[in-house]
Amino acid sequence: MVQEIVSAIRSVVGNERVSLHEPSFHGNEWQYVKECLDTTFVSSVGKFVDRFERDLAEYTGASHAVAVVNGTAALHIALKLAGVQPGDEVLVPALTFVATANAVAHCAATPHFVDSDERTLGIDPLKLREYLEATTEQCDGFCINRITQKVIRVLVPMHTFGHPSDLDGLMAIAHDFNLVLVEDAAESLGSYYQGRHTGTFGLLGTLSFNGNKTITTGGGGAILTNDPELARRANHLTTTAKLPHAWEYRHDEIAYNYRMPNINAALGCAQLEQLYGLLEAKRKLFDVSRKAFVNIDGVNFVSEPEGCRSNYWLQTLMLDEDHSYLRDSILQSTNEEGIMTRPAWVLMNELKPYRDCPAMDLSVAESLCSRLINLPSSPKIIIESKGSKLYLSV
Amino acid sequence: MVQEIVSAIRSVVGNERVSLHEPSFHGNEWQYVKECLDTTFVSSVGKFVDRFERDLAEYTGASHAVAVVNGTAALHIALKLAGVQPGDEVLVPALTFVATANAVAHCAATPHFVDSDERTLGIDPLKLREYLEATTEQCDGFCINRITQKVIRVLVPMHTFGHPSDLDGLMAIAHDFNLVLVEDAAESLGSYYQGRHTGTFGLLGTLSFNGNKTITTGGGGAILTNDPELARRANHLTTTAKLPHAWEYRHDEIAYNYRMPNINAALGCAQLEQLYGLLEAKRKLFDVSRKAFVNIDGVNFVSEPEGCRSNYWLQTLMLDEDHSYLRDSILQSTNEEGIMTRPAWVLMNELKPYRDCPAMDLSVAESLCSRLINLPSSPKIIIESKGSKLYLSV
Repeated sequence: MVQEIVSAIRSVVGNERVSLHEPSFHGNEWQYVKECLDTTFVSSVGKFVDRFERDLAEYTGASHAVAVVNGTAALHIALKLAGVQPGDEVLVPALTFVATANAVAHCAATPHFVDSDERTLGIDPLKLREYLEATTEQCDGFCINRITQKVIRVLVPMHTFGHPSDLDGLMAIAHDFNLVLVEDAAESLGSYYQGRHTGTFGLLGTLSFNGNKTITTGGGGAILTNDPELARRANHLTTTAKLPHAWEYRHDEIAYNYRMPNINAALGCAQLEQLYGLLEAKRKLFDVSRKAFVNIDGVNFVSEPEGCRSNYWLQTLMLDEDHSYLRDSILQSTNEEGIMTRPAWVLMNELKPYRDCPAMDLSVAESLCSRLINLPSSPKIIIESKGSKLYLSV
Repeated sequence: MVQEIVSAIRSVVGNERVSLHEPSFHGNEWQYVKECLDTTFVSSVGKFVDRFERDLAEYTGASHAVAVVNGTAALHIALKLAGVQPGDEVLVPALTFVATANAVAHCAATPHFVDSDERTLGIDPLKLREYLEATTEQCDGFCINRITQKVIRVLVPMHTFGHPSDLDGLMAIAHDFNLVLVEDAAESLGSYYQGRHTGTFGLLGTLSFNGNKTITTGGGGAILTNDPELARRANHLTTTAKLPHAWEYRHDEIAYNYRMPNINAALGCAQLEQLYGLLEAKRKLFDVSRKAFVNIDGVNFVSEPEGCRSNYWLQTLMLDEDHSYLRDSILQSTNEEGIMTRPAWVLMNELKPYRDCPAMDLSVAESLCSRLINLPSSPKIIIESKGSKLYLSV
């Protein structure tokens, strides 16, 4: 079966070495970046940062976008703005990239790990509701963890590999248990839940433009919100809280140097212009890949949840439970062959720094973790096999 | 006198609008950045990040340099590596940019503000020694603040406007009072104290490559150290503490996403190649500027301290005490005329978030703050007035 899987991947990606996800620069990247260099506006002031924020807001439908240095910084500030205090608990999926938990820790708060839904790969709202009913109580409008006696302040869905979580279910929980919803949409630029862009359902949402993401700014992220005051606060907190003045350097709170530099935003503006085409290529790659696996028993291709449109950031194979023992052989064989694949992240509750954090039963996340394999997902696989740039046109 | 000063500045900078500090791109910036785009290595992996670190180490004489997203992030990590714990106090000058104090706050520690020396614009070691003798005690090898009973863990000299602090005096204090020395060399790339580069005297030192600095990477910073284990830890903590593995995502401590992206490092490599020429231009600008002010009473031009070679990052005017009342008129007139000038930063102990932090008598810093004015300092002022790129050659 391992050899069947390697052959199926080769039938899609060809016989060369292939990485998990490479950026694709076929638009105005050079032109915009060169304009930064020619005008010397490469740093925190410049027209591309402002434009990138406007373009992101327009694309996602959020009222405001604030561009920052990366997705971790975006989530750190979003959590602070959502009211996270030192000592609070924040509900995050155990199945996520470490940045989700780190951003909570950077607020001096504690991540509290919750289980996943096999259908969405995101937080399971039914299981979470039962857990919160059994383990928390409401006190003065706050959700209190009965065991630790701490305030559970925020619920952070993460849209795994670009697939939207069950936002209706999670919004209802946030409402019923007095939790603030903050979406970690680092992986889901271009993913929609019932026609609305992910990252725009919570009080705040966050994006990432790291080099392995659907579009990249080198390093970068953004905070999305529909609240103008939160947008103003996000901008202020990410730019050292400097008060506007012709020459005086006065700052009115402890803040951060998190602003995205103009040269990175220039890349982002060019990338965003090509997003429709990149998403089309990734969707096409999903179709081709799924078909290549259709006759292999014991394995399924992860597809977008019902009612959702996924960006298919990472193409994902899910082994049946009775084939999970093959995961490491598949990873070994593919990587040795020059096909870069990877498993889901080690669950957060299994990492040394987060081992003692509160957690619900995580049996589904544990099962998923033993069965998921990400396959090469670069849009260039489709674009280059087509021998044209057709798929990149908007 | 205000008009005399405006005229003196005009005699140096010409009659156009002139900013405080603009980057100067006359080398391989475009070539290196284009190489990033062509190879798609724009993010956290790539040859320019490694090269920039090697080049910085070679230039400064530090054994190791670790490139990060900005100077604040560099100081944050350096302080953590120096052992700063939540609740500790860290000695920082009141006369500094807010990032110095913010990095302390980001460690959940408290900045403790100390006074400046008019000769260096940095921390005054004689005054600091008297203060520490009067207000601290040694207990089990730690320096304890007698009033707050907290550990004073680290001493952070900042080399104001590029002028080296009295490092001999400060190293002696660190030694005698059991303090770790961490240098905030954000402003002093290219500045030397007794022939040795600033940022290499403490256990760790930090640099900044923000858009207004001597060289820029858009946004960027670096940690310098001679200790290989601290360098390894700095690298680990700034790259999410991920353990090396072909595919597994396992992280062994709470860490940060602070790595400098390759596209920003590409800019840095090109800029560093031109540093000698940029420093030569800035030194020339100092000579020309100082001469323009030589016949104006009541004002002096700040020059490098004895035994030091300064990068002259910002050219600085110092009003005599009996002329300090003119500071705001000078700032007003120059900025209205399109000559960007600025005062020293509002002292840290006067900012709302740091108002209640411990502080010694700050009378010299207060006096300096009322008398310092930074003048336009871009190397291009010299380079363009020469009509050639001569000053940029290494």
